[in-house]
Amino acid sequence: MKKVKIKGHFWVEMEEKDFLGPGRVELLERIGKFGSLRKAATSMGLSYRKAYYMIRAVNDLWSQPLVELKKGGPGGGRATLTKTGKQFVINYHQITQNIVTFLTKQGSILLKEI
Amino acid sequence: MKKVKIKGHFWVEMEEKDFLGPGRVELLERIGKFGSLRKAATSMGLSYRKAYYMIRAVNDLWSQPLVELKKGGPGGGRATLTKTGKQFVINYHQITQNIVTFLTKQGSILLKEI
Repeated sequence: MKKVKIKGHFWVEMEEKDFLGPGRVELLERIGKFGSLRKAATSMGLSYRKAYYMIRAVNDLWSQPLVELKKGGPGGGRATLTKTGKQFVINYHQITQNIVTFLTKQGSILLKEI
Repeated sequence: MKKVKIKGHFWVEMEEKDFLGPGRVELLERIGKFGSLRKAATSMGLSYRKAYYMIRAVNDLWSQPLVELKKGGPGGGRATLTKTGKQFVINYHQITQNIVTFLTKQGSILLKEI
């Protein structure tokens, strides 16, 4: 029996613009973990600038911020993943899981009547 | 209400190798239409050589050919989309349709409890 697999890439658009994909979701999770945009960015090999614009993009697209950024002071600024941000991360993973399960089932359809 | 959409690309792997995606499926369909690999390739802006290797790849990966190629003679060679090839095209479109429908439904999951 040959091994068939349906593979895919997925991302979420909001108002026709890129909103969430694997990279942004990972960044959100790391912000939740580190409480710092700089640490989250560095841990993923991203520049601070790039990470900052990723967060601005998601915050601008949704009606409430996914991440709250507070400027510096002696210990440096803080980044907080909001309740909204946390829920988006959870829901995104739910969708990813659903899609993977669904695609696995589609494999058998490809071989129907062949 | 913001407009959310799950977007995706997908393709089929057979034995861990690329088997079918939008380009190869379109080539198969055009072979079915024109009965000629050269005409099918040209109509898609592909070189004959490139199209030939695409067909070789799918034929090699499945136990039966999706396209039968017959060499030349005065009128040039003929390419025939086999019954197997036709069924793969049908099933691939079925999967595409299923995935699009499924992704549309996943949009509402992203906004759950947000």
